Amino acid sequence: MSAKIDHIGIAVKSLEQAIPKYRALMQKEPDHIEEVKGQAVKVAMFRTGDSSIELLEATTPESPIARYIEKHGEGIHHICLAVENIDTALQEAVEAGLEIIPQKDDRGAGGHRIAFLHPKSTGGVLIELVEK
Amino acid sequence: MSAKIDHIGIAVKSLEQAIPKYRALMQKEPDHIEEVKGQAVKVAMFRTGDSSIELLEATTPESPIARYIEKHGEGIHHICLAVENIDTALQEAVEAGLEIIPQKDDRGAGGHRIAFLHPKSTGGVLIELVEK
Repeated sequence: MSAKIDHIGIAVKSLEQAIPKYRALMQKEPDHIEEVKGQAVKVAMFRTGDSSIELLEATTPESPIARYIEKHGEGIHHICLAVENIDTALQEAVEAGLEIIPQKDDRGAGGHRIAFLHPKSTGGVLIELVEK
Repeated sequence: MSAKIDHIGIAVKSLEQAIPKYRALMQKEPDHIEEVKGQAVKVAMFRTGDSSIELLEATTPESPIARYIEKHGEGIHHICLAVENIDTALQEAVEAGLEIIPQKDDRGAGGHRIAFLHPKSTGGVLIELVEK
């Protein structure tokens, strides 16, 4: 089974300003808006088919999203791919020369196992893998 | 009907180097590799569900992908959203404050009508719309 594009995470300065634009682009209302305190972000999610677009606003100056915007400006922060078995996927990724970003906790939202691959090894893209 | 994520276009320096990595990540072979002379790119496409990941390598120094990499390094070049009616979608986008990039020709690959929205109006993301 191939990996699926689970979501695209876009770092924005203001959800209030970005939501009306993505409502027009996605031709629908956001499915939900929530604060994820552990990541210091507020998220607006637009589901479409198997995938979502997630707008991410920092809730503190130390949020990874605040730091991203400070360095790069607004834009795509990461792509998340859903895989059936994250251990197999990571083993194949490492064998292909991809670099896993070390993390303390491999549980993401919903208790799913997650991992991140370093942009310098993927062609400039921060890639999250999630086992679903 | 909401828009679908048609594909994510990733600018890479070398398909030869990037394909083995994305083969591992996507857990499949690329569906096809083709040169699109009009855009001065060579494309490797990995389909998954309704969406694709497209790796883009410049074939000339004047290619938009070569210029992108020169300015930003490798990374996500654009997201393409598929809409049912591009005229309606563009009208709603403009009303929401999004800015259309003027173009001479609105026909893309496969003869589909396409349009691009300026990153400065979308939260830093070059967004392509395609009517499918």
